[in-house]
Amino acid sequence: MLERISPENIKDRTLAELTALCDELRATICDTVGKCGGHLASNLGAVESTVALFYVFDFPKDKIVFDVGHQCYPYKLLSGRYSAFSTLRQRGGISGFPKRKESIYDCYDTGHAGTSVSAAIGLSKARDLAQEDYAVIAYIGDGSFNNGLVYEALNSLKIVRTNVLIVLNDNGMSISPTVGGMYDVLSEIRTNGKEENIRLLESFGLAYMGVKDGNNLQEMIEALGEAKTKLSTTSVLLHIETKKGKGYEFSEEHPTDTHGISPVGAPKQREYSQVLGEKLCEMAARDDQVVAVAAAMKEALGLSEFFETYPERALDVGICEENAAVLCASMAAGGLKPYYAVYSTFLQRSFDEVIHDVCGQDLPVTFCIDRAGISGADGETHQGVFDLSYLSLIPNLTIISPKDTDELKRALEFSLTYSHPLAIRYPRTGKVLFEKGDAPLRLGTWEYLHQSATKVTVLAVGERCLRTAMEILRELQTENLDFNVVNARFVKPLDTALLETLQGGHVVTLEDNVLSGGFGALVDQWVVQSQTLCSVKNFGYEDRFIPQGTVEELQSEFGLDKEKIKAHIRSVLS
Amino acid sequence: MLERISPENIKDRTLAELTALCDELRATICDTVGKCGGHLASNLGAVESTVALFYVFDFPKDKIVFDVGHQCYPYKLLSGRYSAFSTLRQRGGISGFPKRKESIYDCYDTGHAGTSVSAAIGLSKARDLAQEDYAVIAYIGDGSFNNGLVYEALNSLKIVRTNVLIVLNDNGMSISPTVGGMYDVLSEIRTNGKEENIRLLESFGLAYMGVKDGNNLQEMIEALGEAKTKLSTTSVLLHIETKKGKGYEFSEEHPTDTHGISPVGAPKQREYSQVLGEKLCEMAARDDQVVAVAAAMKEALGLSEFFETYPERALDVGICEENAAVLCASMAAGGLKPYYAVYSTFLQRSFDEVIHDVCGQDLPVTFCIDRAGISGADGETHQGVFDLSYLSLIPNLTIISPKDTDELKRALEFSLTYSHPLAIRYPRTGKVLFEKGDAPLRLGTWEYLHQSATKVTVLAVGERCLRTAMEILRELQTENLDFNVVNARFVKPLDTALLETLQGGHVVTLEDNVLSGGFGALVDQWVVQSQTLCSVKNFGYEDRFIPQGTVEELQSEFGLDKEKIKAHIRSVLS
Repeated sequence: MLERISPENIKDRTLAELTALCDELRATICDTVGKCGGHLASNLGAVESTVALFYVFDFPKDKIVFDVGHQCYPYKLLSGRYSAFSTLRQRGGISGFPKRKESIYDCYDTGHAGTSVSAAIGLSKARDLAQEDYAVIAYIGDGSFNNGLVYEALNSLKIVRTNVLIVLNDNGMSISPTVGGMYDVLSEIRTNGKEENIRLLESFGLAYMGVKDGNNLQEMIEALGEAKTKLSTTSVLLHIETKKGKGYEFSEEHPTDTHGISPVGAPKQREYSQVLGEKLCEMAARDDQVVAVAAAMKEALGLSEFFETYPERALDVGICEENAAVLCASMAAGGLKPYYAVYSTFLQRSFDEVIHDVCGQDLPVTFCIDRAGISGADGETHQGVFDLSYLSLIPNLTIISPKDTDELKRALEFSLTYSHPLAIRYPRTGKVLFEKGDAPLRLGTWEYLHQSATKVTVLAVGERCLRTAMEILRELQTENLDFNVVNARFVKPLDTALLETLQGGHVVTLEDNVLSGGFGALVDQWVVQSQTLCSVKNFGYEDRFIPQGTVEELQSEFGLDKEKIKAHIRSVLS
Repeated sequence: MLERISPENIKDRTLAELTALCDELRATICDTVGKCGGHLASNLGAVESTVALFYVFDFPKDKIVFDVGHQCYPYKLLSGRYSAFSTLRQRGGISGFPKRKESIYDCYDTGHAGTSVSAAIGLSKARDLAQEDYAVIAYIGDGSFNNGLVYEALNSLKIVRTNVLIVLNDNGMSISPTVGGMYDVLSEIRTNGKEENIRLLESFGLAYMGVKDGNNLQEMIEALGEAKTKLSTTSVLLHIETKKGKGYEFSEEHPTDTHGISPVGAPKQREYSQVLGEKLCEMAARDDQVVAVAAAMKEALGLSEFFETYPERALDVGICEENAAVLCASMAAGGLKPYYAVYSTFLQRSFDEVIHDVCGQDLPVTFCIDRAGISGADGETHQGVFDLSYLSLIPNLTIISPKDTDELKRALEFSLTYSHPLAIRYPRTGKVLFEKGDAPLRLGTWEYLHQSATKVTVLAVGERCLRTAMEILRELQTENLDFNVVNARFVKPLDTALLETLQGGHVVTLEDNVLSGGFGALVDQWVVQSQTLCSVKNFGYEDRFIPQGTVEELQSEFGLDKEKIKAHIRSVLS
């Protein structure tokens, strides 16, 4: 039925037919995610509510913003993207997140938590000013509902004076189980209908409605119909209880493990996060001051064992990156040694706190920045390609990009006695271990991985770029060409002593980061300002948002193409 | 009495003596702020509660974090800084904000809204792990209480499981009157003791206490004593009602105008904000799509008239910079033309939303970035010296720094037909109008303000740097030396056509921004990557946090010293 369903004809279906449609949606999602990877459990839980939304509302005239977007697959399948859905998360294919460029049914791009309520309010305000008539809906999970931006948005409802529908999809989970005060407020409503909590939400200008079983189509259709009617006079919070992973037993039982999954059969790689977790545990055993902080997703960050072994020294504050950063700064001010594990892209949310709270006070917080560089299939909102740029501009901050998982351990060892802010950035997975480098790291020092009598030196940041450099080296050596390869593990401060020795030569920089303000830019500025006579060619990502694809294809396409790098090195060697 | 009071002997004073002390504190604050400028009204309102805090608690053993810090003057005066207080906000003098480097009584630096609760929780957690025994207090105004970070912090109280005292100083104002849903929650408690709102706050793990007159010493001492006792078993929210500007009639009546004031007798300068406001009003009259958004402080941003004239198209969402950015993005997605007026330093809070919501979707939002460059007496947390760096790394974003207030108008005119993200950054005040440039701005084009047959070209960004360049030009012309001066008004994209003509010459870049990742870095990278043969010398701020002082003295000290620039130009000319 799914292939013939449209936003128009779905309204003609019987409840039995719609129930069968839900089964089809689930099967399609399980099948596609098994092949392409993607977000499984949250999408399975959102099936009935999405079908009900199509039944009651008129998309794309009515507009819906999915918070983060981990629940948008059923919506995509029902809005004309069924036939293309098998290209999910692939280069040029269907995105795992809402994308305005993909469909007129997607009115607002999301990817980071907490934007949906603000976005719905803004769209609704635009509608009011244009004196048009349609509904605007924010669809948000209880995990995102913890984010401060949601509070700011709720707080502004009475200021903007516009009516939106907020569907709060409460499955008790973000990636890990949801925690915190607001979640307790919601839980008390769920378990005993606590009136004062409802009235509290109403203080923000929201009419509260609850649905006990958000996976029940009939209930959802009735509730959404009622909410739609109310929207003419008030904003509405429709609080629905759903089951994450619904309809797929393994996922229901393992909602965290099946939140985001890799394609079935994908090779298991060595994870930097696992090394981080093991090393932090080891350090915590030696040093009472070590504490670990995560903003949700402690599992994916490698911290499960740390949280089990040191529960008093481990904090997962939910999807609250700003709070996590300030907690780290203040715990450091109080004498502790905090490690804040976070994805590169999500650290953007803590930018101001990294500047003022951590670096402005020069406090010994270590940022363990995972998924740095191109992260791949999640696309634009999840690439970790800006961190070298937005971090290197901050005074007092040292930045390390280790060359492999062993050097990550040494970087962490370095952090333990380093009494200033430190950022360590690394990709998700590693493939090689480089041979050199058992000595402890010294601040601002690079190392040669290969050195010979040549005027060409490649300065590469991190495992991916070093691997590329070494591969090219081996290939060019077969042509009797040779060049130096330097592990530029400190992006800040630069190893200026080493740079000075490159006078008169040709330098090539490689980084898994945008060119603007990144490592290459730092080298260029140093060369120009020190009046060092050498040529420099920067390789890194051009000034564009990088969409979904495999890491390898995106690297090639957006600026780190191995053949082009090789051609350049060959040209300066000849 | 104030000169003899200490945190120890204050506890021996009678209520009458403490009341007299309050009068002295007020007189000292009014006197000093009149001479040095600073934050007046909020500090006047905090006098009694601060005296009571010293009476009940033991600082510095007990620790207090002032949110933002606009209420910390009485605390500074009572913690050993009375004699130095006359140096308030001056280079090397007492900071207008809490500073750990200044005193052991300051345990955590603040400056941006909403960090205090997180910081108190982190300090409290560090105390718990060290098994020490002292109280940790967050002192926060109702304006800051709107910020999403506070919600994230409250939300994490139950996760961190530590006890803090939050003194919520509710004077009904941030800089403008406080607005929004949470404020209504608090107001309902104030006006009718609404029980369910109290219980809502208690859901977050807080025991609620209220003080009707937070300017009554006796009431405050009793309440704080009770709160201190409770702290052994729970976190406490002590909600006190105070009068902003208390005790100084003019300030009580004009709390917004006396929030932050300039020294008495300081010359009134032409404000970029005023020009912004006038131009936006004019554009709004022509174009229905124009809307203005502010995150508090609409007055200081020049938007008062806009808000009065176009109330339906003007949104002040309180100190919620993230929400403001997403509202702009979504209103743009809905067909409007939003202008987000914001101080440079506060835009850091919207960094992730600028990247994803605005630039990721390539939406026509214009950021009107005020107080860019060194802002002066507010110090480290308020300098607007990072924006060129953190904005230029973002794809799809164009950056203009107009040369004077007239060019600000042309930049805004440019924005009206420009359908992509745009940042316009400018300092608070202007001193000159440059003669050239009535023509409409064209994307990525610079202009010569002075051109002659010389190999030396100064590329200067914004009025301050251009003024410096022109002053040096006039001075060197008396020595029969000459160089070109270019108004590099587009920081992104660079005017590469003009840059190409500088081949073989000497280039000097001037920017009111840090050197890391700023305009000079962009020029350096372009020169190196395009293999253009010219020398470039960058002038801008070194890689340090810039403390308080006058704009002029800080510019000289941190990297934009006119004599050094002149010496450099002279050296390359000779």
